[in-house]
Amino acid sequence: MTTERDVRSPAHPALPEVERRAHIPAGFLAGGLAAGIKASGRPDVALIVASNGPMAAAAVFTPNTFAAAPVRLSRANLVASSGWARAVVSTSGCANAATGPAGDADQVRVGELVAGALGIDESEVLHLSTGVIGTRLPLDKVAAGLGALVPELAATGSGLEAAADALRTTDSTTKVATASVALPGTDGALHEVHVSGIAKGVGMIHPQMATMLSVVLTDATAAPELLAAILRPAAARTWDQLSVDGDTSTNDTVFLLASGTSLAAPIVADTASAAALARAVEAVARDLARQQAADGEGATCLLTCQVTGATDDADARAVARAVISSSLVKAAAHGKDPNWGRIAGAAGNARLADAAVLEAAGLTSADAAARAGTPAALDPDRLRIAIAGHLVFDGASGGPQPFDRAAARLALDAPEIVIRLDLGLGAGSGEAFGCDLTEAYVRENSEYTT
Amino acid sequence: MTTERDVRSPAHPALPEVERRAHIPAGFLAGGLAAGIKASGRPDVALIVASNGPMAAAAVFTPNTFAAAPVRLSRANLVASSGWARAVVSTSGCANAATGPAGDADQVRVGELVAGALGIDESEVLHLSTGVIGTRLPLDKVAAGLGALVPELAATGSGLEAAADALRTTDSTTKVATASVALPGTDGALHEVHVSGIAKGVGMIHPQMATMLSVVLTDATAAPELLAAILRPAAARTWDQLSVDGDTSTNDTVFLLASGTSLAAPIVADTASAAALARAVEAVARDLARQQAADGEGATCLLTCQVTGATDDADARAVARAVISSSLVKAAAHGKDPNWGRIAGAAGNARLADAAVLEAAGLTSADAAARAGTPAALDPDRLRIAIAGHLVFDGASGGPQPFDRAAARLALDAPEIVIRLDLGLGAGSGEAFGCDLTEAYVRENSEYTT
Repeated sequence: MTTERDVRSPAHPALPEVERRAHIPAGFLAGGLAAGIKASGRPDVALIVASNGPMAAAAVFTPNTFAAAPVRLSRANLVASSGWARAVVSTSGCANAATGPAGDADQVRVGELVAGALGIDESEVLHLSTGVIGTRLPLDKVAAGLGALVPELAATGSGLEAAADALRTTDSTTKVATASVALPGTDGALHEVHVSGIAKGVGMIHPQMATMLSVVLTDATAAPELLAAILRPAAARTWDQLSVDGDTSTNDTVFLLASGTSLAAPIVADTASAAALARAVEAVARDLARQQAADGEGATCLLTCQVTGATDDADARAVARAVISSSLVKAAAHGKDPNWGRIAGAAGNARLADAAVLEAAGLTSADAAARAGTPAALDPDRLRIAIAGHLVFDGASGGPQPFDRAAARLALDAPEIVIRLDLGLGAGSGEAFGCDLTEAYVRENSEYTT
Repeated sequence: MTTERDVRSPAHPALPEVERRAHIPAGFLAGGLAAGIKASGRPDVALIVASNGPMAAAAVFTPNTFAAAPVRLSRANLVASSGWARAVVSTSGCANAATGPAGDADQVRVGELVAGALGIDESEVLHLSTGVIGTRLPLDKVAAGLGALVPELAATGSGLEAAADALRTTDSTTKVATASVALPGTDGALHEVHVSGIAKGVGMIHPQMATMLSVVLTDATAAPELLAAILRPAAARTWDQLSVDGDTSTNDTVFLLASGTSLAAPIVADTASAAALARAVEAVARDLARQQAADGEGATCLLTCQVTGATDDADARAVARAVISSSLVKAAAHGKDPNWGRIAGAAGNARLADAAVLEAAGLTSADAAARAGTPAALDPDRLRIAIAGHLVFDGASGGPQPFDRAAARLALDAPEIVIRLDLGLGAGSGEAFGCDLTEAYVRENSEYTT
């Protein structure tokens, strides 16, 4: 029996520390309340507003061809404004997806309501939604809710927490994370820049598709182009490596918004400040992704796979994602079964991500197109696998390794299970986040829609 | 409410009828017995032998990088012989995967035992195995079993049934299928050519990876190259469209073997006889794949998705596979929930298969490489979805359609659930086969390995 140190851990970029509290960066107002979209009476409308003039914005949207009305409207507004906005509105309980032209018109009306209440233009509103697919938004309730919410918006942590709460569908927790970095101002002194994110996880007791939403706020001063250059690769290393059940929603959306109110100097590309902001954004994204995985539907544990020694990072991420996505690995995690055969088998099936994700993660456009969907390089004779610190397979030493099965089972009975693979081929590393597969998942998703 | 006729069914090639009985084509001996590999005492060693000299052989193997010892040995033997063999041996209960060099040596020894017992060369033996990953074959038991089995081999249906029985792991049924076509002989008369397949499905109560094995026998006279040209596209339309839980095994193998004993004339490529044989092989493959899906682990129903109106067949197959692979769709099927939002969402996520599968299905090598892993073309405004005969979504008519939900639920309470999508874009069609996701799947796969 050996310890976790026997398999090297991935060489993450050194990310700043993250706190799980709702800290609102300067330049934003936030709030949320129950408008009655949800039958449960839980909060279901959230607003985040830039209090300091337009905010720079970047977004990552679902690649699902069946993108929901709010996704298509947000995309169009961001293109028209070249990446500037003044407000984000979220409705929860109704996804407004697959609702046809009527659903598009409903979403436009939501933008008009927000714009009217805030005295801004409807093209300056970004949209999020989550909930049941194929049902129409109750516009009268949304209108009344927005009317009540606008006076309550606050530049406080509790305002942001209320917004995070109103993103939730069946999430069992409110998901918040915050990090900060000290960046130089024009005065030569260091000034703290904050990055705070809220998210809803992937839990669906009654409804339909897994829906992942997140809004990340910063008081940094940065142009939309820089935010996009920071957000996309951060998402490729975090949210693109998150899976609860392999279903990609029609509504997935992440916004990165910068109010520009920090005293730190405007951040430009290819500088130390840009790199520091990028690390803070990735730290927040990573922590939110881990919260979402841990709160996956029916889940009892977070399942993390860390891969080192891959030919490159794209291969490492593919292998990590294959392992945490395997139904058999997930079921074994639930059973606290150190079933390394399933891990080896899942790794052997690893296929690289879509071209768009590979390109976001740094591959050239040609490389991304050529490698999308191809098998990750893996040599069983060089592979090492450790489960919760127990080395169970070492290809260079004959394969299966003796290990203390009872101790391994005990180690698997934990809130987080870490599976490590060293491919022994190169310097690539990556990780992925999932959860166990439980009877509760099946029960919750077998219940009727109506 | 509308009927199933409202959504066109796919234009399958007209396949011959299939009977689910174990008919052994001329030129083969088969048998199986319990050698004690399985603790349960169930049959676990199967042999199929060509009684008429070497048989022409083609194979499709798992694309899993972690291919098991029997897969690698079969591949090597087929390359060395240019596609000829005299026997197929199968061991069940031990996958002999991830067992390192010792496992390779074990499998070589199995070949020596078979060759010795039959008086053939070990290079003329093809290998199959299925069962627990990472454990060694009990060679003494295999040797004793083979010794007892060889005298019992029979050119009878019950011999083939015994072989099919010995392929099983936790399959609840023995899977057999047979079809025949009448082809011209050199005498000008028509002679019946038989195609019979056996398979093990995808059920794993105690063990590890889903393992799919099949052996298809024909008495036709055909060269290995023609068999390969027939088998690969047939597999692309059938077994490549089969999913129980998304995990591809280390051991998946399909053999197509021709004894050449039929009175029909030798079959050459690009003739009507070759096309007829190909249809019979595909009919048997399709029926076995459907049996395997229906017997998926924990499954209570077969889930079939038929797609028409796609830009081409590759897109259609991708969409069909995405629908039956979705955990949310599978759970809804279990709950008899006509939850079309999940179907639309899953279709919107469809990605084309690996380049090797696309090429096998008829795409040029360049097209296959370019399109592998890319999204299937889908336009929500043209999509139509029918569940068990109920039209639930019509993009051209505003999207969601009113339907009788109670009647739909009743229709879903059936041994087979058919979901039909008409993409409204072109003439491409395809289908895929899966099963519902049940608590039993999770329970069975959460149990300990030991």
